[in-house]
Amino acid sequence: MGSTYGKIFKIATFGESHGAAIGVIVEGCPAGVIFNTDFIQSELSRRKPGQSRITTQRKEADEFEVLSGVFEGKTTGTPIAMIIRNEDQRSKDYSHIAAQYRPSHADYTYQVKYGVRDYRGGGRSSARETAARVAAGALAKLLLNQAGVKITAYVSQVGTLALSKAYQDLDLSEAENNAVRCPDPEVAGQMFEYIDSVRKQGDSVGGIVSCVATGVPAGWGEPVFDKLHAELGKAMLSINAVKGFEYGSGFEGVRMLGSAHNDAFFVDENGSVHTRSNYSGGIQGGISNGEDIYFRVAFKPVATIMQDQESIDQHGDAAVVQGKGRHDPCVVPRAVPIVEAMAALVLADLYLRNKSSRVDQ
Amino acid sequence: MGSTYGKIFKIATFGESHGAAIGVIVEGCPAGVIFNTDFIQSELSRRKPGQSRITTQRKEADEFEVLSGVFEGKTTGTPIAMIIRNEDQRSKDYSHIAAQYRPSHADYTYQVKYGVRDYRGGGRSSARETAARVAAGALAKLLLNQAGVKITAYVSQVGTLALSKAYQDLDLSEAENNAVRCPDPEVAGQMFEYIDSVRKQGDSVGGIVSCVATGVPAGWGEPVFDKLHAELGKAMLSINAVKGFEYGSGFEGVRMLGSAHNDAFFVDENGSVHTRSNYSGGIQGGISNGEDIYFRVAFKPVATIMQDQESIDQHGDAAVVQGKGRHDPCVVPRAVPIVEAMAALVLADLYLRNKSSRVDQ
Amino acid sequence: MGSTYGKIFKIATFGESHGAAIGVIVEGCPAGVIFNTDFIQSELSRRKPGQSRITTQRKEADEFEVLSGVFEGKTTGTPIAMIIRNEDQRSKDYSHIAAQYRPSHADYTYQVKYGVRDYRGGGRSSARETAARVAAGALAKLLLNQAGVKITAYVSQVGTLALSKAYQDLDLSEAENNAVRCPDPEVAGQMFEYIDSVRKQGDSVGGIVSCVATGVPAGWGEPVFDKLHAELGKAMLSINAVKGFEYGSGFEGVRMLGSAHNDAFFVDENGSVHTRSNYSGGIQGGISNGEDIYFRVAFKPVATIMQDQESIDQHGDAAVVQGKGRHDPCVVPRAVPIVEAMAALVLADLYLRNKSSRVDQ
Amino acid sequence: MGSTYGKIFKIATFGESHGAAIGVIVEGCPAGVIFNTDFIQSELSRRKPGQSRITTQRKEADEFEVLSGVFEGKTTGTPIAMIIRNEDQRSKDYSHIAAQYRPSHADYTYQVKYGVRDYRGGGRSSARETAARVAAGALAKLLLNQAGVKITAYVSQVGTLALSKAYQDLDLSEAENNAVRCPDPEVAGQMFEYIDSVRKQGDSVGGIVSCVATGVPAGWGEPVFDKLHAELGKAMLSINAVKGFEYGSGFEGVRMLGSAHNDAFFVDENGSVHTRSNYSGGIQGGISNGEDIYFRVAFKPVATIMQDQESIDQHGDAAVVQGKGRHDPCVVPRAVPIVEAMAALVLADLYLRNKSSRVDQ
Repeated sequence: MGSTYGKIFKIATFGESHGAAIGVIVEGCPAGVIFNTDFIQSELSRRKPGQSRITTQRKEADEFEVLSGVFEGKTTGTPIAMIIRNEDQRSKDYSHIAAQYRPSHADYTYQVKYGVRDYRGGGRSSARETAARVAAGALAKLLLNQAGVKITAYVSQVGTLALSKAYQDLDLSEAENNAVRCPDPEVAGQMFEYIDSVRKQGDSVGGIVSCVATGVPAGWGEPVFDKLHAELGKAMLSINAVKGFEYGSGFEGVRMLGSAHNDAFFVDENGSVHTRSNYSGGIQGGISNGEDIYFRVAFKPVATIMQDQESIDQHGDAAVVQGKGRHDPCVVPRAVPIVEAMAALVLADLYLRNKSSRVDQ
Repeated sequence: MGSTYGKIFKIATFGESHGAAIGVIVEGCPAGVIFNTDFIQSELSRRKPGQSRITTQRKEADEFEVLSGVFEGKTTGTPIAMIIRNEDQRSKDYSHIAAQYRPSHADYTYQVKYGVRDYRGGGRSSARETAARVAAGALAKLLLNQAGVKITAYVSQVGTLALSKAYQDLDLSEAENNAVRCPDPEVAGQMFEYIDSVRKQGDSVGGIVSCVATGVPAGWGEPVFDKLHAELGKAMLSINAVKGFEYGSGFEGVRMLGSAHNDAFFVDENGSVHTRSNYSGGIQGGISNGEDIYFRVAFKPVATIMQDQESIDQHGDAAVVQGKGRHDPCVVPRAVPIVEAMAALVLADLYLRNKSSRVDQ
Repeated sequence: MGSTYGKIFKIATFGESHGAAIGVIVEGCPAGVIFNTDFIQSELSRRKPGQSRITTQRKEADEFEVLSGVFEGKTTGTPIAMIIRNEDQRSKDYSHIAAQYRPSHADYTYQVKYGVRDYRGGGRSSARETAARVAAGALAKLLLNQAGVKITAYVSQVGTLALSKAYQDLDLSEAENNAVRCPDPEVAGQMFEYIDSVRKQGDSVGGIVSCVATGVPAGWGEPVFDKLHAELGKAMLSINAVKGFEYGSGFEGVRMLGSAHNDAFFVDENGSVHTRSNYSGGIQGGISNGEDIYFRVAFKPVATIMQDQESIDQHGDAAVVQGKGRHDPCVVPRAVPIVEAMAALVLADLYLRNKSSRVDQ
Repeated sequence: MGSTYGKIFKIATFGESHGAAIGVIVEGCPAGVIFNTDFIQSELSRRKPGQSRITTQRKEADEFEVLSGVFEGKTTGTPIAMIIRNEDQRSKDYSHIAAQYRPSHADYTYQVKYGVRDYRGGGRSSARETAARVAAGALAKLLLNQAGVKITAYVSQVGTLALSKAYQDLDLSEAENNAVRCPDPEVAGQMFEYIDSVRKQGDSVGGIVSCVATGVPAGWGEPVFDKLHAELGKAMLSINAVKGFEYGSGFEGVRMLGSAHNDAFFVDENGSVHTRSNYSGGIQGGISNGEDIYFRVAFKPVATIMQDQESIDQHGDAAVVQGKGRHDPCVVPRAVPIVEAMAALVLADLYLRNKSSRVDQ
């Protein structure tokens, strides 16, 4: 249990890091979405390893195949299965993972929960699973584009290096022009150097991905438990290595007074309702209010490092876990498309769920 | 849609602030839980208004009635319905809310989504709904107690006044001894004075509630989307006024290096597996690892203030929303039992979901 | 688990025969449905006991109260809670049920499953629970009426006395004019006498309820598992005492050849697509095709009889269960509104689910 | 929506008749089930076409591939994906289906619902989809076998040729020894000849599949809506061409008196509780009582026949649908493993759902 997300636009992912394939079934995608294969592949490429020297050097083409649900270039309303073959399944020496629990990985907890685990490359707990989410999220984006919604994520912090500007003061399209995916080229350069230095130490560092969704009309989100930001929060927290989520004013907002924090309504020259500030992050009472939706996602330093670490083996004896293989010294650059994908999945689902909110719809 | 939570231990809440009653159905609670009415009532009393001069002066007894699912003092495995009558339903002048959209409330978004809204006291979007959660959460606590799990929340920040000590260095049982529910009596006193001063200004201020769950065995939580912390995050973000969630090292963790952040495993003198640090917050790969689970929840300054504010009416004309009535200048003291209740609902559900993780269980 | 039905128009029922109350929460009903209290009460009255001498002589007013989700006469899109107080909760002698397992009742299976049961009047397994369904179903009917759908059920067989005419050859509105709810007055009279004779013997007899839904447009129903007739079948089989379900040609259809059974398409003078026959029962591939939907539901002779029966007690010793109290000698007259209610719940849900089948909707 | 079944042991199927592949994800299968590849393949072979001259002569190997969730011969608790490639995807002339609506097929209803359809071989509505169910059902059988449950289906009627013996008086293992899958060799011979004569006429005929589950302990099934027989009914009615479902005494039971129909309890020489008769079909109050569970499923004559038929094209003009290609003159022999698979999926799910019915489990 736990490998599905969504109530109408639903996804079910499957697959282990070194099994035959990973993949996803999307159920509930309306018929008539133009299935842009190139776009989906390009989203997968944004996530794949080996993009620069600050990402893991593993080589995976991450080419996907559609098995169902698409006919003559459009979705048909039936389940859409997409799979990505794992290329590197040759027998390898995983004995170090098989016998030991890597610190801050899922080795120990999977073993306790299931009594067995596919230890090869982390198995189901590997971040490789997120490729399936990106494929499904790309389809969600295609649906949302037809509804006028655009989602853009970017790296806003690496270690202690943080962007000082708000998203409104940045050209977010710059983010894709550098390996860090930070829209401020100067800060991006500093981040790159810092990540590279951490890499050389065989260590890892955390970071923050920020995300903005524009064009979401007022009315999306379901009270009480399925508030838009609660769904976003769950979706983001389900991404590997995420430790926190905040939207709108977030943790900083606790310091404010209500008189300053409240977003005053006004009607603009076009007769549209807007708010003068947006501490609400585009969401009030769990429902979108037509303003930009924005949020931030905290990623820990990934657990795989190239250093020896104290641990235990599965017999409970002390063991030293050795650092070897390839790793991402900082996951946030590759996490950007994953954050966007999850946001798209949340919004696509709430978009469709909203269709039955009134009798006259 | 959206008023249900859980997959096995499931709740469905209903009710508006000024309708006949609010309530909850709990489905999936196992038979045989000792239904401690006094305990449930005492949890409701921790949440109810009028507890001190820094909480709203509304008077609500919040006495609950059980309609089903309990027989001879025990749960029977069938749905348990609990209701709380709304006492103050007399016709009142709500014309100011009916005609205007209060800033940073849900008035506008409900109106757009549904085309109609019960404007009396905020209707469904009122935090009054959380009483139903507290009742259900109290039942979840009774189930969890039988499994050895204890959940304790407390106020760790109000405005800029923050506790500097970690939960391990505090006597958490102190929290219930003061009106703020902060376990450090000295800081609690400062918080009380600050909240009271904000109240006198007719303003509001935000805060942070921290929470610790002890006794959770390794193995609870479902990969991939229903990770323990993702469920906790969604549950917390679904509480009125919450803007952020973090667990373990949280947002601070992004600044760390992996070599410092990783939690080394060791076996203690009793043969139990533990970790030397707990930046993981008791959760690895979305599954509990047997350590304490801890997290923090950020609450914004509540939107109801006793000051005039700019807004619009439902015809789109400019309007001044007047501050009147009674309000909570800071919600975090009363939010403590709500955070505990939601944590209990998450853990009860994952506890039961874990029962089918292996054939030998 | 198991007390909820529906994916968008969802209901959750609760309550035992002799607890404080039974009731239902309807979640997912769109805002704007005119909440006709009198209609809902009249549907409950069609189900309530004591309607004639061939139904149980228990007296229950079955008056319902709305607790939430309705404002100024319309649904608001939030959960609608309806409860019916149990009137007759005075302490009674249930020791015969407490200690013994009544044959073909749920006493034994509940005891084994839960280790405890509310034995008073059958507890949760009592058909009293269906009153909650009728209330929710009445609301579903109000929604469907606005969509042009009408649902009519009637008694078509009692014991071996069967209507020979198809529904098209009957005036179904006649059904409500007699105590049996059979639209053929002559056959109704025979059925009445037969049921009364069975009653006098202290025995019970089975029967069949037929149902027709008109005005369902083509397109409702979800392949593969949630086919319209599969949802109908589950809903009907969930009613107490139901042993079988068939739609369209049903069990008789197995004897036919495909060349006779296939329903030829044609276009009528108004340009509407129709089929010359309707062995499909208005459903093809699990999706409505615009023709009338019709089906039949088989009810066993109810287990409560006024005769002594062989059984065991809860210690496993032989026991004689004595016939006493009041009973329905044949449930089908009172089952008619329950069948309609469940059909309405199925159709309301599939109506709303269909709203996201295409991007252009 | 609609392509998923189950609440804990959940399956999601995908795929069209002539797409790249069909398949299924099984989620919620406990870790530790011995994954017997040969058994699953043999179940698929029981369903595949071309088994004798009374089944369709299409050639499909129906070899499945496991993509995930299995490691070292056992399930790991993570999603298990199984796919079956469609072999015959070469471009063919489907213009007759593309342009016309075949009578009593799903062509028309899919077109209306989705505005588009994959018309090749029936697309998603093809019975080819049931191969995915058989693969998942085989896995459910492996889990159930470990719990002592055995499921056996067989053909009990073809057209008007019906078995007169009850299942207790038959050697059900005989069913697999003939092409019809009828356990009475003599009746099987008559059925074979009859089906063959229908085939020669280019026509089709209906039939009934009966099924028995033994070894189900008392306690499985969830009141109120998810009664064991309601879940079975839905599962069976979701199979292509099914028109009816009955369990225990079924439609015949309506003719009986309660005094004859009630199943008296007694304790056998081993101290086990049993009933003297089993009109309840092993289910009371929706929960298994430890007796054999038995039910019957009615299949219509399949719509594909080798004769010309009146219909319309998609412009609404009259058209003649020509009989061509290959078809099953009677589906019930190949439906036997599908009925078993669906029964296994229902029981596996209710088995796991029952694990949280009591605190002491």
